[in-house]
Order: sequence, then C-alpha cells, then structure tokens
Amino acid sequence: MEKIAQKYLETEPWGIIERGFHKERSLVSESLFSSSNEYAGVRGYFEEGISLPSLRGSYFNGIYDYAKEDTPNAYLGIVKRTHFMVNAMDYFKIFLSVNGVKLDLASSEISDFIRKMDFKTGELTRRFVWHLGESEIKLTFSRFLSMTECHRAYQKIEIESNDSAEVTLSFYLDGNMIQWGRDVYFTNLRKEHRNGTAATFSQTLTTNQKIASFMAVETPIQGTYEELPMGVGLSYDFVIKPGEKVSFRRTIVNLAERNGIFISDLSLSEKGNKELKIATKNGYDKALDANKRYWSEIWKKSDIVIDGDKEDQQGIRFAIFQLEQTYHGFDSRDNIGAKGLTGEAYSGHAFWDSETYCLPYYLFNNPSAAKDLLMFRYFGLEEAKKRALMLDCKGACYPIATLNGKEGCNLWQHASLQFQPSTGVVYGIYHYEKVTGDHDFVLDYGLEMILEIARFLLERGQWNADRSHFGFYGVMGPDEFKMMVNHNTYTNYMAKKTFQYARELLEKYQKDPRTSRVLAKIKMSKDELKRIREAEEKMFILYNPKTKLFEENEGFFGLPHIDIDKIPTIEFPLYSHWSYDRIYRGDMIKQPDVLMFMFLHSAAFTKEQKLANYDFYEPRCIHESSLSPSIHSIFACELGKPKEALSFFAFATRMDLDDYNRNTAEGLHMTSIAAAWMNIVYGFGGLRSDGDCLSINPQLPAVWKSYSFHILYQGNRLKVEVDKKGFLIINQTRRSVVLSVAGKKRKIIRSLSFGK
Amino acid sequence: MEKIAQKYLETEPWGIIERGFHKERSLVSESLFSSSNEYAGVRGYFEEGISLPSLRGSYFNGIYDYAKEDTPNAYLGIVKRTHFMVNAMDYFKIFLSVNGVKLDLASSEISDFIRKMDFKTGELTRRFVWHLGESEIKLTFSRFLSMTECHRAYQKIEIESNDSAEVTLSFYLDGNMIQWGRDVYFTNLRKEHRNGTAATFSQTLTTNQKIASFMAVETPIQGTYEELPMGVGLSYDFVIKPGEKVSFRRTIVNLAERNGIFISDLSLSEKGNKELKIATKNGYDKALDANKRYWSEIWKKSDIVIDGDKEDQQGIRFAIFQLEQTYHGFDSRDNIGAKGLTGEAYSGHAFWDSETYCLPYYLFNNPSAAKDLLMFRYFGLEEAKKRALMLDCKGACYPIATLNGKEGCNLWQHASLQFQPSTGVVYGIYHYEKVTGDHDFVLDYGLEMILEIARFLLERGQWNADRSHFGFYGVMGPDEFKMMVNHNTYTNYMAKKTFQYARELLEKYQKDPRTSRVLAKIKMSKDELKRIREAEEKMFILYNPKTKLFEENEGFFGLPHIDIDKIPTIEFPLYSHWSYDRIYRGDMIKQPDVLMFMFLHSAAFTKEQKLANYDFYEPRCIHESSLSPSIHSIFACELGKPKEALSFFAFATRMDLDDYNRNTAEGLHMTSIAAAWMNIVYGFGGLRSDGDCLSINPQLPAVWKSYSFHILYQGNRLKVEVDKKGFLIINQTRRSVVLSVAGKKRKIIRSLSFGK
Repeated sequence: MEKIAQKYLETEPWGIIERGFHKERSLVSESLFSSSNEYAGVRGYFEEGISLPSLRGSYFNGIYDYAKEDTPNAYLGIVKRTHFMVNAMDYFKIFLSVNGVKLDLASSEISDFIRKMDFKTGELTRRFVWHLGESEIKLTFSRFLSMTECHRAYQKIEIESNDSAEVTLSFYLDGNMIQWGRDVYFTNLRKEHRNGTAATFSQTLTTNQKIASFMAVETPIQGTYEELPMGVGLSYDFVIKPGEKVSFRRTIVNLAERNGIFISDLSLSEKGNKELKIATKNGYDKALDANKRYWSEIWKKSDIVIDGDKEDQQGIRFAIFQLEQTYHGFDSRDNIGAKGLTGEAYSGHAFWDSETYCLPYYLFNNPSAAKDLLMFRYFGLEEAKKRALMLDCKGACYPIATLNGKEGCNLWQHASLQFQPSTGVVYGIYHYEKVTGDHDFVLDYGLEMILEIARFLLERGQWNADRSHFGFYGVMGPDEFKMMVNHNTYTNYMAKKTFQYARELLEKYQKDPRTSRVLAKIKMSKDELKRIREAEEKMFILYNPKTKLFEENEGFFGLPHIDIDKIPTIEFPLYSHWSYDRIYRGDMIKQPDVLMFMFLHSAAFTKEQKLANYDFYEPRCIHESSLSPSIHSIFACELGKPKEALSFFAFATRMDLDDYNRNTAEGLHMTSIAAAWMNIVYGFGGLRSDGDCLSINPQLPAVWKSYSFHILYQGNRLKVEVDKKGFLIINQTRRSVVLSVAGKKRKIIRSLSFGK
Repeated sequence: MEKIAQKYLETEPWGIIERGFHKERSLVSESLFSSSNEYAGVRGYFEEGISLPSLRGSYFNGIYDYAKEDTPNAYLGIVKRTHFMVNAMDYFKIFLSVNGVKLDLASSEISDFIRKMDFKTGELTRRFVWHLGESEIKLTFSRFLSMTECHRAYQKIEIESNDSAEVTLSFYLDGNMIQWGRDVYFTNLRKEHRNGTAATFSQTLTTNQKIASFMAVETPIQGTYEELPMGVGLSYDFVIKPGEKVSFRRTIVNLAERNGIFISDLSLSEKGNKELKIATKNGYDKALDANKRYWSEIWKKSDIVIDGDKEDQQGIRFAIFQLEQTYHGFDSRDNIGAKGLTGEAYSGHAFWDSETYCLPYYLFNNPSAAKDLLMFRYFGLEEAKKRALMLDCKGACYPIATLNGKEGCNLWQHASLQFQPSTGVVYGIYHYEKVTGDHDFVLDYGLEMILEIARFLLERGQWNADRSHFGFYGVMGPDEFKMMVNHNTYTNYMAKKTFQYARELLEKYQKDPRTSRVLAKIKMSKDELKRIREAEEKMFILYNPKTKLFEENEGFFGLPHIDIDKIPTIEFPLYSHWSYDRIYRGDMIKQPDVLMFMFLHSAAFTKEQKLANYDFYEPRCIHESSLSPSIHSIFACELGKPKEALSFFAFATRMDLDDYNRNTAEGLHMTSIAAAWMNIVYGFGGLRSDGDCLSINPQLPAVWKSYSFHILYQGNRLKVEVDKKGFLIINQTRRSVVLSVAGKKRKIIRSLSFGK
C-alpha cells in the first residue's frame, strides 16, 4: 500500500523540466508534457517519433466512435456497444534526417537534452545536440496549442550545425493513428494541396465525424507536396551551412466537426483555408503572446502560492495548469475525461468525478465553466431518459461513463448498479446554486434534470418486505468493492437529499411560471410528487446513534474482516492480483463511501459523527481510487489529525509528476488533479460550501511557511493568505460578503485578519 | 407463467409419431426425433436437407473446441476462453433427385407423411409419397445408431415409383457443419476411396481431436466416388421402373478420437476400414435386432407403466428412452449435457444437474453408469484443483459447466459464485454409497474428492466480523435470481454436510490404509482437519425455530416483495424481458433453493419444517428452471397436496414433447427428463434415499388407475406396483431387503402388499 515516488523531473515553480533524456520514462513523459486547450489534446510525444514504446495520442473533445464488437452476454440493460474517444490526427508529426540518417532518440547520440513545459505560456520546448560523426546539430522543437483560438496549433523547429550537412525535414498531417495499440478508427476522405499549404479530410468509421486539418510552413526553402495513405506532407531538402541556423514555423488549423456528417468537405476546406491564412499571418510569436496573456489571467485569479515546499508548489501549479488546459468552459458539449485529453485509458469517458471532484475548482474559479459542465448534463437529459428506460425505469439515469451522453460502460455491475452519477448531477446543481447564487440556471435547466432524476430514483428504489422503509437494492456505491448490496447508505442518503432538494425547489419557486412549465413538460403528477415525498420520509438510513456509525450497507458490519495492512504490497492493484470475486467479500473498502456523503453534506453532521466514522472506515480503506486520499486528508484536517492530513496529502499534488500509481504512462489522472486542489482549499483552507453560507477555517500544514489561494463566491473575489501567525481574507471586490470564518459569521468588506 | 402445450404428435405408448409433415415445427421435430447412443448423437433432421430453418446437428461425446475470441474484461478467476461441443460430421446426409428435381420437403408436393421413433429399437423411420407430375414416388428413410457397437450407424433408403423415373441418390460424409449458425470448427485432413467405400478424416480446429468416418453402401448399382471440400460421397444414378422397389443400405463407422492428436490417419484408416467391413457384413437388420434386444433389457428393468393417462405413459417412456440414449455408462469420460447430444444450446456442457438431478435415475437403474458419472468427476479432479487456484483457493472447485473438466462458463457471476457443483459431487458420492453400498468406490476415489472439496470450501468460506460463525459470502445459490449474497443457506448447509461427511468417513474408515494414503497424498494436516471441524460446527444456518423457516440468504426476508402472479405472461422468460439487474432485486426466486437442500437431505427435516418452507417459498418461485416443478411436485406429494403435486407434474414428462418452454427446437431438456423420473418415483412413489434406509411411501395420483416402477437397491431388484387399492412391493432378487415402508421398517423377502 506504500506509494513510492519516481522522481526524474526538476523541481521548478512555473513549469516542468526534464534534463537529460530519460528513455525508460518516455511514456510517462508523453503524458506529463501533454498540451491541451479543451478543444484538442496532444500527448508530449516526439514529433519525429521514436523506436521505443510510445503512445502517439492526439485527441479532440467529442470525437469518438463505437466498439467494433458487441458486448457478449449483453442481457437487457447492458450496453451492447461501448464508445470511446478516438485517437485522431497527428498534426505535429515530422520526419528529420541529416546526411541520410534519421533522427531517433532511442538510438541517436545526443547531449544537452532539455525538455520544458512552461505553465506561463503552455509552450513545450525540447532542445538537444545531435552528434552525427563529426557533426554537431543543435535542434530545438517548440509547439503549443492556442488557448484563445482553439482550432490553431503552432510548431517551430530550429536547426543549427557546426558542419555542412544535408537535411531532409518533412511536416505531416497523418490520420494513421493507432487506437488501443490495435485499430485505426479513421478513413481518409480527401487530400488537398494549394499555394504551398496542405490539408487532409478524414472521418471516423461509424460516427462519421469529420476532422479537417490544414497546415502552412513558413520557410524560404522550396518544399514538395507529398501524400501518405492517411494524410499529407510538405517536405524540405536543403543543405545547412556551418554556423547557420535554419528555422521552420508550421501553422496548423484543425476543424473537428462532431456533427461532421452534415458538413461538406468543400465548406470545411473553405473555412479551414481561411482560418489557416489568418493564423499564419498572425504567426507563432504573436499567438504565443496571446497564450501568455491568457495564462497570466488564469494565474492572477487562480494561483495557489505555497512557501516552504517547492515540490508542492510545482505540484499544485501543474494541477491547475492541466485542469485549465483540459477544461475551461469553451464548449458545453465538452466534459472532463478521467484522463483528460492525455491518453486512451478509460476511453476518454467522463465519470461522476466531473460534478463531485472537478466542479468545485470551477465553481470557485470559473463559474461559467462550472455552468457549462452542468449544461453538458442538460444536453444529455434525453439520453439519460433512454438509459432509465433500458433499466426498466422512467425518469433519467445518468451514465457512469460517457462522451456523448449515452452509457459507455459495458460492465453491468457498474453501469446498472451505480447511481452516484445521477445523484451527483443533482448535488452539482445544488452546489452550483449555493456558490454562484444563479437561481435562473436552476429554474431554466436544473429543475427538469432534478425532477427526472428523482423520478428515476423513485422507480429504481423499492419498498422493503413490510413496506416500512424505502431504499435501493442491488447497487454499488462509491466503494466499488461492494457489489449488489442493499441499502448502500451513500445511495440512500444522496437519493433522500435529491428528493428533499426537489421538494424544496418546488416549494420555494412554486410561483415562478417556469416551475409549472417544467412540471407540465415532464408530466409529473401530484401523486408522483406524493410518492417522492413518502420515499424521502421513509428512506432507510443505517445509523446507530450509540456508536454514531453509519453502516455502509446492510450487513456491512457483519462482513469478514480483512486486515489491509497484511496484504502484501505486490498484490496491488487488487484487480490484477486477486480473483475478481474475492475483492468483494470483506470489510475492506476501495474509497470513501460513508465518508463521501459526510463530506458532500458536511454541515449535516457533527464533528463527533465524522470522527466516529473516520476512525471506523479509514483503517478499512485501501485507496485504490486516486481520489480517495484527498477526501481523507480533508477529514483529517477537520478532525484535528494534522499528521494524517499531511500524509494523505503527500502525493495528492504530485500523483502524476512522481508517478505514484505507476500508470501515468496511460495518461494523467485528471480528476485526482482536481481533488488535489480540493485537498488544499477544503482541507487546509477549511472551506465548506454545502452549508447556509460559505465557511472558511484555514490551518497551516507544519511543513509550509505560508500559502494563499483564491476563491470566487457569489460574485466576490476573495484571496486567503495563511501563515504561521494566522490568516487573512482579502475581499478583492467592492462589495461586502458574509462568510462563516472559524465558526462565526463575519461580514467582510475589505479584509479580515485572524491572529495576524 | 402459464405453460401451454403445443401438441402435434400422436399419443402412442412405445414411440413418437408425427403424421403429416408439420413444417412450422420442423426444428422441434429435429430435437424430438434425435438418435443417440452416448458415443454420438444426431438430431432428427432430414437426410436430404430442407429449405427451412434447420439445425443439422451431429455430435460426439467429448469432441469439443475453444471459442475463437477471449472473454472481454476477463479479470482474474474469469474464464478467458469457453469451450463447447462441436457440431461434427454429418454421416446421414444424402442428395436425392428424381427426373432432375431435388427432393425438398419445404416445397415438394407430398402425401401420407409419417415419421416415427420406435422406443423398442431406436429406429427412426420416415415415409411419404412424393408427387412429381404424374409420378408417385414412395420413399422410406430409416436410420439408427447401434446401442451395442457405438461406432456404428445404419441407414436405409427405399424408393418405389408408379412410373419410370431417373434417380440420382448420393450418400455423403460431410464435415461442413455450422456451429452456432456461424462457424465451422473442423478442418479436413484427408479423403479416402477404396473398394467402393469412402472415408474422410477431419480434425477440430484447436483441440486437434480427430474424427474419421467410413461408409459402405449396399446396392447392386454401380456408384461413383465424389469429393466435397470437407467430405466424401458415393453417388448413384439409375432408372427406376414402374412398380420396382430399390433399396440402399448404408453402413457408417465413426471413430471420434478425443486424444486424436496422438493417432495417425493411417492407423485410424486401418481400424475404421476393418470395423466397416464387420459392420457391413453384420448388416442393417442384424444390427437392428441387436438394438431391439438391448432396448428390451432396458424396458424390462426400467420401464414405468402408467395406466390411466396415455400422454403421461408416452412422456415417461420418452424420458427413459432419451436418458438411456444419452448416457448409460459406456465411457466414464462422458457426461450428460443439459441438452444431451441433441443441440448446441448450453454448449453441450454438463452442470450440477448430473449429480443432483440425473444421478438418481442411474443409481436405481444402472449403478455402474452412476459410478461412471462420479468417475467423470474423479478424472476432473486435477482441473478442479486448478480452478480452485484460479479463485485464490486451495482444494478442488468443480466447474459450473464443463465438457473436459475445465470451467466452461465465462459468466463470473455463475462460475465464481456457485458451489453447488462441488457440494453436488460430494452429495452424489454420499448418495451413491447409500444406494449401492459400494464403500470401495468411496475409499478408492470418493474420499480424495470429498477432502479436496472440503479444503476448497474451507478456503472460500469466511468467518464473520466477530468470528462467531462461518459461512459463504458473495455467492449465488441454486436460486439464480440472487447474486453476491451472503450466507445462502443452501451453500452453507451443503458445505456443512460436506464437512460432516468428510469427518464421518475419516472416523469410520480410519483404519483402512486407503484413508491414510489419501490424507498423505493430498497433504491434509491435522490442523486443517481441525479447521474443517470448526467451520462445520460454526456454520451459520439462518433458521427461525418459531416460524420454522430457513432464510434463503442473509436479508432475504427483508427484500421487496414481488407479486409473481402480477407479472404479465409475455414478460417470461425474464432474462429476455427485464433489465438484467432487476431480476435480482426482490423475493421472487427462480427455482428451489431452501426447498432443494430440504429435498436432498429430506430425512433431516420434519414435515412441519417442510410445510412451512414450502408454503413460504413456493408462492415466490417462478420456475424459470425446467427442473423446478418436479421438486415442488415431490414436496406437494409428501405434504398432502395432491392437486398441487399433479399440477406441477403436469408437464414434467412432456416438457419437450409438448414444447412447454418454447425452446425444444434448441435441443431436449435432458436433465428435466431425469427430473420427470424423480417426480414419479420420489413424488408419487414416495421414495427417499438420503436416510438410514431406503423408504417408500407410494400414493396414486387421482388421474391414474395404476402405475408401476422398478428400482435397484443395494443389489436388490424391486418392483413397485400402485393402484387404487394400495401398493405392492415385489422383491425380484433372492435376498431379503429392509426398507422403510409408509414410515415403518419392513423386511421384504418376496413381496409386501399394502392395502391390496
């Protein structure tokens, strides 16, 4: 269970730096040096390729396809065809040879290798000297995706040589990308070459989504146009003179059309070439300047400054950088995949993590992006209703894993049994309303989702044998080491809260015409509302007032005990080392379940209750989800266990930088990155956002000298600075705000200092 | 839930007869008219083929192959490649044309169609008149598999015409058999033609099992040899004269070599041609005579005579006929597939049905076959030990579904959670010892299996949280509508009985050297035996002495109630109409579970206990297993509910004849056929074989005038005759036997009459 860091990057406040090429960590670097701008994402692979294991991954948000084979034994309610994010166009690809020798860092002799991702610009650069006989060729590769013009990407290659040398440099747009190391999910439709630019038009296999990519290369050298089976190239042969520096700048435009089936190649060509002209005119440097400005705004409003631990400082900035790269509310049809746009694991799917782990970051930094995340669910409402019907229920059941709103998980034991995505959507709306005060969103979109979800929960839930209580049978809660259990308390409690929120909204907004419009639209009768009310009242919550313990599910307390400290380290992850059924047969838990609903509805529980449940469940938790430690750290902060809080925090910000889980190679743990932010702001910062008003109660971890963070709350921009003397809350908005600070309600006009 | 008969066959005491061709029931007829002899089985398809849906199925016991694709998401313990019985050589295939027109009963104009399977010979005959313009061609097709010489099959075709006609008749051996309507799992190795005979040598795709088929055709007409891609043919062109009758007799020899990889084609050729020569010399009629004698012996010792209901009479004889065709202890590597050798559904796999439902028939009719059924498990011990290891346990875990001893079911929710195959093997040995008194078998083979199974159960079971009791967590009992439950009472009880039987055997035979040999061989320590003892003592049995109810599993009594009478008939089978998860979330049960262990260990429970549990569980049971009604009928007999007993018995003997489940087309319900026998002998006959001595307590169903059955018990052959006046037990052996008759122990020397 012990997690061990695998460090090889330099500790650096505003970026990540690899000095000297670490071949054995090449796949991990590909993930860590990923560039994204929400619209697209490219792993940090080498432009020229490498003869080592490599995942040349390039993805576009919302570009997906369906599995080629049906799920076997797909009984009713089981997803017959999964869908997944497609590994799409490789637009940074090049070929480089000098004196007839192809560059390949697996074997080429090099020195002075340095690779850097700059958090202030998003520019990825790589420099090294290639020793080719007597020749020393200095190479610099730079690239970035535009954060302001999402279709655009830029690439720069600089070559210097101490000797005369013959160089071939080719730039490609290549759709021959291998999915799952196995299949290609693209067909090439057409190639184009005009005025020294090249373009390629491709289409996904069954979803018929189109990707058109265009490129222009700035160079005085005359190029030749080249065609690949799945793409195009522009190739340059030239002789470099000793001491000369040759520079190439490529401008790329990608048009990834989700509904591409309705768009003609011709109109794509027109649009793309026009955009390419503007982008090229604008050029690498100006576009980079725009990125700089963009990131400067981000850091101004969202930076977390830590004094006292350089690794944590780098870690949390990496987290914020990657979160913003992945999602910032550019398009409400986008969501946050478990691996962002940095790999194919989890199929690019978004999970309940979006509302439960990621939403808080956006709520307190970018409310409009937070709203967009919820709008994604509104656009998915029809699919969620279809999914509910597949499960023999009315209402809306949100998918466990999705790109397009449809259920993408073909493991019935998850997709048909887990309802935290649905209750999570309701919690997200509830949370959004509390933090932003945007009631219109709730009435215009939220209420309909909430009522359809409540309707589903009413149908999926059941009354027990003597009809004395209501609850959920045959479910899997957040603790995925329990399957087909009855009365999972997380599910029951969150359903109860869903029913309650629905009832309260209907009462509060009963006179708003939008309320009756929604009720009429979804045909919700008084009788149905009465039944929802009954289910809320009689919801079975397994709680023992003597011990103050919630039972995770019916029978949990009687389960065989598993001493998790006696499980040999080599048996983790258990899915790879234990017989599948064995994982489910004890009191060992995978991630917080009781603690999770106690965190989400923190204000509803006393400190004694939290302590009792933390002390019972924490020793049974093996944290096989990367989201688990942060939640435990937040509890430890609140419960006066600073050492435990720090120990759980230890790898939260650096999960990927130090590859604690040994699977960063597959892509970044994007939602854990969001949990790391929560760990600082909710944990050390003591923020709670589920009560009547926002509360803050910061503490300073022993290992830090000071730290500060920002939050946006109901339109007020606040900065919190914490050091050894105490803390200071600065209201950066010209409007007072009421907060609960260290347990007392306080009105903050300019600032409030505590102990300072 | 109502089952409706689909009658089209004539009611006939010694066979089944179809008068007039029922096109729409053609697939069902293919199943019903199946011929088998344990070694091989052929569905009753038309020799010449038909342009209607048809499953030309021809199978050999033990000839199987592996799936072409891996199971997706095959976590540890989940079977990666399933295996299945291969649709093998078609050796009855012919081609027949008259005046250039091919015979095809889908479209050919025919009259006077009659098809018959004769239970006294196993001969299948089909006669009809083919009207071809003015010509009337009388055709008779006959065929059978030899019951005494299992490699041999015979076919006879007779043609008469009122007119001169040109006939082409070809006889084929064709390996081009379509599995699952999709794939061929054979490759042809070689074809042979010598002295007017033809042969073909084929091999399964990955298991490399060989099938060599040889044929000779008796006819004065000169034939020509023909080759097919996957087989061979002998073809005859001739002109038939008005009034002339032309007859062809084909002798077939099949050598299906399970371990064919080690056998050369040449030795197969030599063996096959030799056998073909003898078989041909013997000829159709002599072979049929041998079959007649064989079946006469079977009926003498195993017939059940029913007076008063011709349909039941036909039904039970069909059951006995098919059971004997499928399995009679010819080879201990054979077992009884759920569909016998009559179809591909259930992959030809044998289930726990073999020991639990089929074994009793053989115990009381053919103890040596019963022993062979158990020897199959002994030969599978090594595979069962491997399977246990796959489940992270020591000992032996017997597969849910198998042909070769390996687990063949890739649904983990069955294969990793159901242990009734393992406890069923132990029960089978226990039952075998009781009925036959063959203690040597127990010591030579049984004990080792029992101890390895006990070892497995000890490992798979767990102690509860406070270690006060032992039991099984995360299991599925016989009621397959409960999944991942804890303390399924069937599993716990049968495991307790396993531990108890193991302990008793070790005590009883402690001085027999074979006992210590086994303990040494399997390295079972005193400590392990002590732990088995503890688990036996502390086995958790959910029983309420007040209500006398056993709880099917922990929490069952609190489950939501499902009123099964309110489920619309069209929603059956539920697997095809309900969302998969929904099936598992209520108190509805699929088949007897508590009642099942109370049946198997009948003597351990009082009538009051049986009544309480019957009254509780029966109304919750939807009988979605074809085995379920018979068990309920047996209880109803014992509990004085003759009407219910009859109603459950109603379709037991005619499940397939009247196609109650609408799936006889896929193959016969072979194990339900065995349950039908139990229904009569255990139900109406009141036989109980789990107590100290065999007990009999017959009653006469109201709809019958009389009935009689035979049993063989510890070497004594007994006949039981029951009529309205009472019953008579005749001891046909010159040795007295002690039975419990109607509740009292009685010694029977010649006969014992009760009320007569």
